Amino acid sequence: MKLLEDRILRDGVALNEEVLKVDRFLNHQMDVELFNEMGKEWFRLFGEEGVTKILTIEASGIGMACIAAQYFHCPVVFAKKSKSRNISGEVYATEVASFTHGNTNLVIVSKQYLNPEDRVLLIDDFLANGAALKGLMDLVHQAGATLIGAGVAVEKAFQPGGEQIRAKGVRVESLTRVKEMSTGSIVFC
Amino acid sequence: MKLLEDRILRDGVALNEEVLKVDRFLNHQMDVELFNEMGKEWFRLFGEEGVTKILTIEASGIGMACIAAQYFHCPVVFAKKSKSRNISGEVYATEVASFTHGNTNLVIVSKQYLNPEDRVLLIDDFLANGAALKGLMDLVHQAGATLIGAGVAVEKAFQPGGEQIRAKGVRVESLTRVKEMSTGSIVFC
Repeated sequence: MKLLEDRILRDGVALNEEVLKVDRFLNHQMDVELFNEMGKEWFRLFGEEGVTKILTIEASGIGMACIAAQYFHCPVVFAKKSKSRNISGEVYATEVASFTHGNTNLVIVSKQYLNPEDRVLLIDDFLANGAALKGLMDLVHQAGATLIGAGVAVEKAFQPGGEQIRAKGVRVESLTRVKEMSTGSIVFC
Repeated sequence: MKLLEDRILRDGVALNEEVLKVDRFLNHQMDVELFNEMGKEWFRLFGEEGVTKILTIEASGIGMACIAAQYFHCPVVFAKKSKSRNISGEVYATEVASFTHGNTNLVIVSKQYLNPEDRVLLIDDFLANGAALKGLMDLVHQAGATLIGAGVAVEKAFQPGGEQIRAKGVRVESLTRVKEMSTGSIVFC
């Protein structure tokens, strides 16, 4: 998606070969007009799939998921990071490793909000090692719902998550795919 | 706002005199069409104030803040809960007590995204003791920005936060105000 690539080149910062900061417009300060174009594009890609629910993970996926859901006319559910190991039987739970924070979170969704009848689209801001998406896929699987695919804003294609998830037969649509980065330089696929 | 009151009566659950669960439509599963009506109402209330930025706090304020921002044509910034006490000089930081989780979070915003020229509207899902809004007010104050007011979805008017914040001269517009609750019963102001 050229609009997002151009914005990354203008306002994103490649700190090194691994870390891309996009907090000016994507995941701290959020440009909702950009999100609207992203939502429109995901709807162009997945609009025929009968999506009944968008599933994302707190916190930075929530804004773009909500704006996108206006096209799909469906609710958004966000998986919550749980502090407690003592969870009730009323939730689906999975472990998600965070490479940024160097820890593992238990991530939960209330069983009330994911059902076998649901056709679920995952949305998230980043895809790198794929930990968050794999966790969300596990929640969808536990619920017995149908996984339609995943809409991602920025895929770091030099990390293995995208390839691994596509190898499982999941449709992943990344609006931008970064081929390589170094300090001050970003190259798209 | 009658639409939101009706929805709370239909899909909200008063667990006891203090806890109101609205996770079916507001803060776990999110009804973006309802958020759109809420955003329209906040714009009716604050649309003449020249808002340049909406500030909220992760995670459950983000969705409604983004939908509302489509009316204000301004970016959303969400304050982040920080795990680390070791924060850089590049952020504004404040402490926010969580009554739900019984702990205190350090909450931060990058200095890049709140400026003295900004006219800031706060948006959040709940107002009870006011801890989150007071924290956001402190961040706006640190930035030297202008605080326009706060848009709240559900105010628990029997708790002191709303009164305390209004007493500071801040305009608080709550779309619903709960006067009292008990198990299975909700009464609005």
